[in-house]
Amino acid sequence: MGIWFTEKQTANFGITAKVNKILVALKTDFQDLEMLNTEEWGNMLVLDDMVMTTEKDEFVYHEMVAHVPLFTHPNPKRVLVVGGGDGGVIREILKHKSVEKATLVDIDGKVIEYSKKFLPSIAGSLDDPRVEVLIDDGFMYIAKSEREFDVILVDSTEPVGPAVNLFSQGFYAGISRALKDDGIFVAQTDNPWFKADLIHQVFHDVKNIFPVTKLYTANIPTYPSGLWTFTMGSKIHNPLKVKEERFTEIETKYYTPELHFASFALPKFVKELTE
Amino acid sequence: MGIWFTEKQTANFGITAKVNKILVALKTDFQDLEMLNTEEWGNMLVLDDMVMTTEKDEFVYHEMVAHVPLFTHPNPKRVLVVGGGDGGVIREILKHKSVEKATLVDIDGKVIEYSKKFLPSIAGSLDDPRVEVLIDDGFMYIAKSEREFDVILVDSTEPVGPAVNLFSQGFYAGISRALKDDGIFVAQTDNPWFKADLIHQVFHDVKNIFPVTKLYTANIPTYPSGLWTFTMGSKIHNPLKVKEERFTEIETKYYTPELHFASFALPKFVKELTE
Repeated sequence: MGIWFTEKQTANFGITAKVNKILVALKTDFQDLEMLNTEEWGNMLVLDDMVMTTEKDEFVYHEMVAHVPLFTHPNPKRVLVVGGGDGGVIREILKHKSVEKATLVDIDGKVIEYSKKFLPSIAGSLDDPRVEVLIDDGFMYIAKSEREFDVILVDSTEPVGPAVNLFSQGFYAGISRALKDDGIFVAQTDNPWFKADLIHQVFHDVKNIFPVTKLYTANIPTYPSGLWTFTMGSKIHNPLKVKEERFTEIETKYYTPELHFASFALPKFVKELTE
Repeated sequence: MGIWFTEKQTANFGITAKVNKILVALKTDFQDLEMLNTEEWGNMLVLDDMVMTTEKDEFVYHEMVAHVPLFTHPNPKRVLVVGGGDGGVIREILKHKSVEKATLVDIDGKVIEYSKKFLPSIAGSLDDPRVEVLIDDGFMYIAKSEREFDVILVDSTEPVGPAVNLFSQGFYAGISRALKDDGIFVAQTDNPWFKADLIHQVFHDVKNIFPVTKLYTANIPTYPSGLWTFTMGSKIHNPLKVKEERFTEIETKYYTPELHFASFALPKFVKELTE
């Protein structure tokens, strides 16, 4: 059989993938980091035993976290990514010509370093001149920003380890202050099959702060249950009211303007988490 | 660790689930059949090492294969299910009051027998007076039917073993003859991450026969990639033009009228398989 990587997505269920080669396995100051070359998914970044991204399916997450808010905002110029050290969200943000500067704040420089080395198709855009990369605590960075950003994207790990503060109401209040008066925020908020309580709580925490709060989904095969949620908090702009002419041509493999709207149509048991 | 069931969904990737108890493990005349009590998913039916259905997530598949065509058809009275011996599709069909008779044709009586015993919440409806259960070859049954059904649903296993004939153009031609002049047909057609070629081929085979051919999707966590496709062939009725008053109140956990339409909005790489 050789080496197989198994992620226990719950105590009693998981995924398993054949590993051709362990490229990196180390403990950073913040988390365990592995880079695995897998037969099915290409190179795979694993943090604290959880799949973060793979070369084969990364486009879904990165396109959906970026393009839904960036097409909802009529003219996004300044964008902040908290986490996301693999660079995939930045790559998608740069497809929007209105963006003048994209800042990435990741607490763990090792994620950036090894993504550049082993995930070049994902991390390559981190060297773009429009991009500023900071190795810093996202929570603290947000806390000292005011009316600075059009869009903030939280591309964090799960609410354990270094990301625990990024799932708190205090953080969402900080994000609201860091956004301009018509700013939009999106966070990845896990899956409804195993983490229904988390989605319910985050949604209502965000709703307490943002006038327009919406949940949308995407299929990510290497993430638990394959059904991933994103929570959007927006001060003014409604993602369901984007005008057709706003959708400029960009290259994607998952996102389409039609899917932009459809991704907000939730399965009934997921919709109930937002009520 | 105890017993874990692992399904290799591809040669190099799979899912794994803790098994509390092996309830049944036998070889039928047609396939290997296991019924497992799992910690995460409740009782799980496995045929030829592939998860067919589980108590926890079965509602997605059964609702989506049934309600999308049954709400598309303005007055479905006679419905045929090919395969589907666990009874879940029948349970959903019976929620439509217009249905006078639902016929289930499964080649393997053992699937029905053990589903009734260990999946009562799924198979219970097989004893309903509106239901006719036949242990027969679906391909042959279809071949001798003519203008009989309003809706035909193909709830088969993968195109290996007993179901291989159910993925052929000859079968779709037979279905067309077995349907009334405004009939609708839906088949499960696997996932776009690992079986893109199959989806492409089935879609175009169906399109050669049915004037209205559409692909739609649903999230099924225990199926490969979590993203499942269904191919619909319809003689007249368009699933995207169902009028609002057609959606009568039925109890569901996944399907909603909004999701009915949204499920046809395909990720770009899936949409390309239909072009």
